[in-house]
Amino acid sequence: MSLTLYELAGADAAVRFSPHCWKARMALAHKGLDAECRPFRFTDKAEIAFSGQGLVPVLVEDGTAISDSWRIALHLEARHPERPSLFGDGQGRALARFVNAYADSAVVAPLRPLLTLDIFLRVHEKDRAYFRASREARFGRPLEELNSDTARNVADFRAALTPARTLLGDQPFLAGQAPAYTDYALFGLFMWARCISEVRLLEEDDPVFGWRERLLDAFGGLARNAPIGVADAAA
Amino acid sequence: MSLTLYELAGADAAVRFSPHCWKARMALAHKGLDAECRPFRFTDKAEIAFSGQGLVPVLVEDGTAISDSWRIALHLEARHPERPSLFGDGQGRALARFVNAYADSAVVAPLRPLLTLDIFLRVHEKDRAYFRASREARFGRPLEELNSDTARNVADFRAALTPARTLLGDQPFLAGQAPAYTDYALFGLFMWARCISEVRLLEEDDPVFGWRERLLDAFGGLARNAPIGVADAAA
Repeated sequence: MSLTLYELAGADAAVRFSPHCWKARMALAHKGLDAECRPFRFTDKAEIAFSGQGLVPVLVEDGTAISDSWRIALHLEARHPERPSLFGDGQGRALARFVNAYADSAVVAPLRPLLTLDIFLRVHEKDRAYFRASREARFGRPLEELNSDTARNVADFRAALTPARTLLGDQPFLAGQAPAYTDYALFGLFMWARCISEVRLLEEDDPVFGWRERLLDAFGGLARNAPIGVADAAA
Repeated sequence: MSLTLYELAGADAAVRFSPHCWKARMALAHKGLDAECRPFRFTDKAEIAFSGQGLVPVLVEDGTAISDSWRIALHLEARHPERPSLFGDGQGRALARFVNAYADSAVVAPLRPLLTLDIFLRVHEKDRAYFRASREARFGRPLEELNSDTARNVADFRAALTPARTLLGDQPFLAGQAPAYTDYALFGLFMWARCISEVRLLEEDDPVFGWRERLLDAFGGLARNAPIGVADAAA
């Protein structure tokens, strides 16, 4: 079995900060699968043209390319049914699907402006013009102005975590007594922040804080030991 | 078995518009249980003092009072295990818990200002002073000014439904092939709107629209046939 995962990387190729790539990385670890993780930059689209689109993660398994983190999860579950399930029984897949969509809509909305300038300062030089132009078009203002809303965005981010916080009052992981894809779908956003920003997203007495700690420690500290990017002062 | 459900009612006692009371009503129907549904007004707190708090729904089963819609669902599931499950197998209860908290945070936020003036116009005369004072304190402005944000609130409400819309792209109900408490937890909000407002919340081509239609038809049209309140022109 040959597995290659194309992951978004910063100027430092060891820094892999994409939330969606982290979902795929955690899913592979959950399945106990080793993949070669290759760095990809925003402007390297030609390198993954074989996948028929231009976004990472892209997983290549024995010559077949799969893009989109949710489709990668479905692929891994279908291809490796003998390994630990990413979804569990009953409505586990529906829970993962729902939490994934919630993370990528309600939770990402206040997080994106908090992280965008930090990402800009850590991406490869060749990505900078593309990144600034595309993000300034999205936000309608210069990246440097996004930090003016930090306090409100942190408050909105914490409020958006209410459903996760509620469920984590009942059980240690969103998926139950052990983590599964439902957890990785939200945790990816925290790895995005961790790898490129020093913003304090959670208070220590927040149940989500303890949950994040448990996931940082999962799989031998895979996430906790991931390289963290340093801003390029010459940016 | 004796079951009584205390439900929030409008000036017209037949109009039961509380989203949380609708969750309990649908849960009872799902279990195939008949309850006497008693009208309650905001200022009738003395009538449910026996429950140890002042909010509805309150369910009384064989002399035991249970308040809070989620605790009512847990009670019905534990007390009537031989009847159709509200949660299903595996992670169904976690899915219901998550969707319930999501409905009551992310989805209710843009809906509340859309409905508040409509509620005011339909509550019992004795509730009006309490309702205006408590809601104007919450919003920090007169109820009559809330309608100025209708277009933005409708857009935000539709955006907040993204996780539900995503899951409903995979399956007819949030709980799977048949409805369960996960569905009622979100559907309650739509009954709140339906019973007291004419605001157009959904476009017909939205997958959430079709899902709402299916739930209106469930249990012999229980929700579709529920009385709708008419605004008191003399308000």
